Amino acid sequence: MTVTDDYLANNARYAAQFSGPLPLPPSKHVAVVACMDARLDVYRILGLQEGEAHVIRNAGGVVTDDEIRSLAISQRLLGTTEIILIHHTDCGMLTFTDDDFKRGIQDETGIKPTWSAEAFSDLNEDVRQSLRRIEASPFVTKTSSLRGFVFDVATGRLEEVTA
Amino acid sequence: MTVTDDYLANNARYAAQFSGPLPLPPSKHVAVVACMDARLDVYRILGLQEGEAHVIRNAGGVVTDDEIRSLAISQRLLGTTEIILIHHTDCGMLTFTDDDFKRGIQDETGIKPTWSAEAFSDLNEDVRQSLRRIEASPFVTKTSSLRGFVFDVATGRLEEVTA
Repeated sequence: MTVTDDYLANNARYAAQFSGPLPLPPSKHVAVVACMDARLDVYRILGLQEGEAHVIRNAGGVVTDDEIRSLAISQRLLGTTEIILIHHTDCGMLTFTDDDFKRGIQDETGIKPTWSAEAFSDLNEDVRQSLRRIEASPFVTKTSSLRGFVFDVATGRLEEVTA
Repeated sequence: MTVTDDYLANNARYAAQFSGPLPLPPSKHVAVVACMDARLDVYRILGLQEGEAHVIRNAGGVVTDDEIRSLAISQRLLGTTEIILIHHTDCGMLTFTDDDFKRGIQDETGIKPTWSAEAFSDLNEDVRQSLRRIEASPFVTKTSSLRGFVFDVATGRLEEVTA
């Protein structure tokens, strides 16, 4: 038995009480970009109801080409206009450097990734970096609101990062 | 007032009842890769508790370099070994082609993205594509379980995609 099997049993209980389907486009026209961290239950943190907002997540909650791709699809095909970025305290991305991480992979596998690991040493500065990457993108053009936050894993509170 | 402001008010209520912090590494050693679709409340669908599993999400739940980056960090630095992939019925990625999407961006902005939009026409086949991309990656080497599913937005049920 894997944990995956346990989660499938949970899903059977979820489906037994499920009422759907909801429409495809996010009803609140919001897209969230957040870290993949296990402690960030984004729907609970923001009080999102099902169907309201796209939720994009990755290591760090950073903005790379794949987040630009997702945001472009979110805005152009599904009508979102607000973007919320969420980094968080005690993030794994603060604990290593790109060079060391890629060296470790190269030492094990013989191959160095061509991509950046996107580690960072300053949380607020990386939120600003993500904001700037979105502002600078020629492909995310429908934004009416763009704001970045740090989630405190000790208090559950979102703190806004200002320019 | 934006929707973002409404969500910040929700967060204040969340923080008022918050008990933390939990440890950084996912306690169940699981990483989920799912579509950003607003109807997929991944924690509820799988019965995830806070702190158990990394949750990676993007348009389609596809596997590009950024998901490989996130999975490599998840496995190498934070000890996950199981991977769960989730696509879903009624997905926006079924409704367009890469060529048309990129042509639309080029027509509006004058610039054609260098990235692929990752649209697909067959849900099960794209889950298999994502499984294969992970299997083929030299950077995701700690996997003990790798399984792919389609979430039915009408029933709430996960259906496994077999090879």
